Amino acid sequence: MATTLKIGLFGFGCVGQGLYHVLNNSKGFKADIVKIAVKNKSKERPLEKSLFTFDKYEILDNPEINVIVELIDDADEAFNIVSYALSKGKHVVTANKKMVASHLKELYDLQHKYNVSLLYEASSCGSIPIIRTLEEYFDNEQVAKITGIFNGTTNYILTKTISEKLSYEDALKQAQEKGFAESDPTNDVEGFDAKYKAIIIALHSFGVFSKPEEVLNIGITALSNYDINYASEKGYKIKLIPTIKKLDNDQISIFVLPKFVDKNNHLFSVDNEFNGVIVDGEFSGEQFLKGKGAGGHPTGAAVLSDISALSYGYKYEYKKHEQHNYLEFTNDVFVKIYFRYNTEIDLQKLNFAEITERYSGGEYNYVVGYVSLQNLIDNRPYLLKNKLFVAIVGDEITNKKADILKLNKTASEKA
Amino acid sequence: MATTLKIGLFGFGCVGQGLYHVLNNSKGFKADIVKIAVKNKSKERPLEKSLFTFDKYEILDNPEINVIVELIDDADEAFNIVSYALSKGKHVVTANKKMVASHLKELYDLQHKYNVSLLYEASSCGSIPIIRTLEEYFDNEQVAKITGIFNGTTNYILTKTISEKLSYEDALKQAQEKGFAESDPTNDVEGFDAKYKAIIIALHSFGVFSKPEEVLNIGITALSNYDINYASEKGYKIKLIPTIKKLDNDQISIFVLPKFVDKNNHLFSVDNEFNGVIVDGEFSGEQFLKGKGAGGHPTGAAVLSDISALSYGYKYEYKKHEQHNYLEFTNDVFVKIYFRYNTEIDLQKLNFAEITERYSGGEYNYVVGYVSLQNLIDNRPYLLKNKLFVAIVGDEITNKKADILKLNKTASEKA
Repeated sequence: MATTLKIGLFGFGCVGQGLYHVLNNSKGFKADIVKIAVKNKSKERPLEKSLFTFDKYEILDNPEINVIVELIDDADEAFNIVSYALSKGKHVVTANKKMVASHLKELYDLQHKYNVSLLYEASSCGSIPIIRTLEEYFDNEQVAKITGIFNGTTNYILTKTISEKLSYEDALKQAQEKGFAESDPTNDVEGFDAKYKAIIIALHSFGVFSKPEEVLNIGITALSNYDINYASEKGYKIKLIPTIKKLDNDQISIFVLPKFVDKNNHLFSVDNEFNGVIVDGEFSGEQFLKGKGAGGHPTGAAVLSDISALSYGYKYEYKKHEQHNYLEFTNDVFVKIYFRYNTEIDLQKLNFAEITERYSGGEYNYVVGYVSLQNLIDNRPYLLKNKLFVAIVGDEITNKKADILKLNKTASEKA
Repeated sequence: MATTLKIGLFGFGCVGQGLYHVLNNSKGFKADIVKIAVKNKSKERPLEKSLFTFDKYEILDNPEINVIVELIDDADEAFNIVSYALSKGKHVVTANKKMVASHLKELYDLQHKYNVSLLYEASSCGSIPIIRTLEEYFDNEQVAKITGIFNGTTNYILTKTISEKLSYEDALKQAQEKGFAESDPTNDVEGFDAKYKAIIIALHSFGVFSKPEEVLNIGITALSNYDINYASEKGYKIKLIPTIKKLDNDQISIFVLPKFVDKNNHLFSVDNEFNGVIVDGEFSGEQFLKGKGAGGHPTGAAVLSDISALSYGYKYEYKKHEQHNYLEFTNDVFVKIYFRYNTEIDLQKLNFAEITERYSGGEYNYVVGYVSLQNLIDNRPYLLKNKLFVAIVGDEITNKKADILKLNKTASEKA
């Protein structure tokens, strides 16, 4: 490809401006932003007017432009832009996790059909180079499991509930005041954002295409002071943790759930707006990466790194997909959870395979036990509506019912 | 280059056997180990005899072999092998940090002269892909500072002194019994190993060639129970920390010293044999990477990753050297240290520019203050001989004497 990059930029918000700043301050790297497409016609902008356009085709159909950098919020419109650009032979860099996760297979196919490169490091975990690390460093090593903190907003909120004993509601309010959470925080606090990232990372670590609608995400909206006290008393922190795990029988499980994390977990020390990823490699052991999860400059830096990679012809090779395309996505697994509930009906709903701890008090009740992920999926609306809090306990995930009794036995022997 | 890699392996110790195991268990990747050169003729080996040779030229002059993997201990012999191999047009993967750090400029030149690739990810921080991350992800971002825990042996010892209140001597003994430390631990405990890695990382992060003999390394051999108690009381952990920092005037400082680390530092949570690296990027903020620092499998995995990279023609580009070749290495800086000493003569030796804390007791004395790095270098033999312990306090490094008064003033205002 051309060594001089002529960039058409979509979106000039926080990240776009961050990128512009980073590009202009980066030594030894030449790439021109030829045109910037924006939506709002009345907004004042810090650069000369001729640089902007309100017509996307002025960029997409400009043969001089060979790279599209897509940084808009609207996932549907982003997909229109990106798929059109790829079909025109332009390379694309995007930070849009929802768009990428929702169209992963189509985007994979488009790259091969038109022999172009689509890079999206900034879509996952801000400044942490997780996709590049998986593509380049774990390309020939078997990954056993990936967990992490992929969403800075919820991590900021959860940190405040433990460190400053704030309620979930107060912590959310503080996050909104500080600009860490949006006025409608659904995408973050219900775990959608973390799920999109998990879906993208699952492709690069295990070669599996999964769809947002089949992957469970339960967020932190049901978190009560009872749960915060329970975690604090046991020395846990509460984190929202996506898990991607290969099971014994060539199946793979992906889900996003709150988790009680103890101090032996690398993620225990990932607080506030930071993100962290643990890659459990079969030979290299646990690799832990931590960095700023969001913000104009970290995301801008990730986008810049992708642009730089394009300048030497870099493409994702999706080697894991070639190697592991026999892996099958499943929700037919059991996980060990803490479940805080109100009535016996709540408890019956989840149909626990095994209960190992049970507490009933005047103010609240909880059990700890093994439940099928599919049961959680089926009851997700009920749990959200009734604000019943669920959190993973320990690291046990199995797809064999027989294992539960064994796991349980080992746990009681340890105790 | 040829897509089929025909490998000549030098050394079949812990890492070599780990690599052999990893290569044989890696799906979707084909590389043959054609021949293995070993030294000891009488040792029993787990593979068929015809695979081994005792004559290095049987590998080096074999035109079928296009990749040399060098995993021997002897740094001088390793350099002979590697430089010969490069001059014969063979690509080389090595894990030998002493050899790479001691011959960095020559190896850089040889790669260019013979248009071959030399990769050495396994030389630095075991399984953490730090060189690749710097080369590929920070290639166009300014790095401000790199610190870390680069040596697992000393970190294991230091962890035990704090967590189990072991003396330095007992912790060293335990590390030797568990195989984490060698019978002659000098290379680790005096900070040479960490220094070699810092020199390699400094080239890839700042483009600077530095020499082992000009970079200060003071290790942990002088650590006493007084120092351990001092750190424990203040809630610090003691870590052996290499620092690579760009100063305001286009100079760069590199040194290895023990440091008192507080709980806000990412490295606080890096214990036992783990390594950690903090890359302070100007835009991406602090990136933190953590992983197993040593062992046959983690190092084997890093070597494998380099072999895999060779299969698609990967080379280090050393972009930072092209961008920053105006940066000048200096030891003319001031650092803030804790210094535990016996006599007034000890104190006078270091000629502190400013002392901010002073304690004299019946059993031991210490000061905290600003000292010139050059003074530490000049007095290194005296400090080692008299077992006087030095540790960095805080993050202040400056090359201006005037800054010390300012830093000191800010510190006292905070207190």
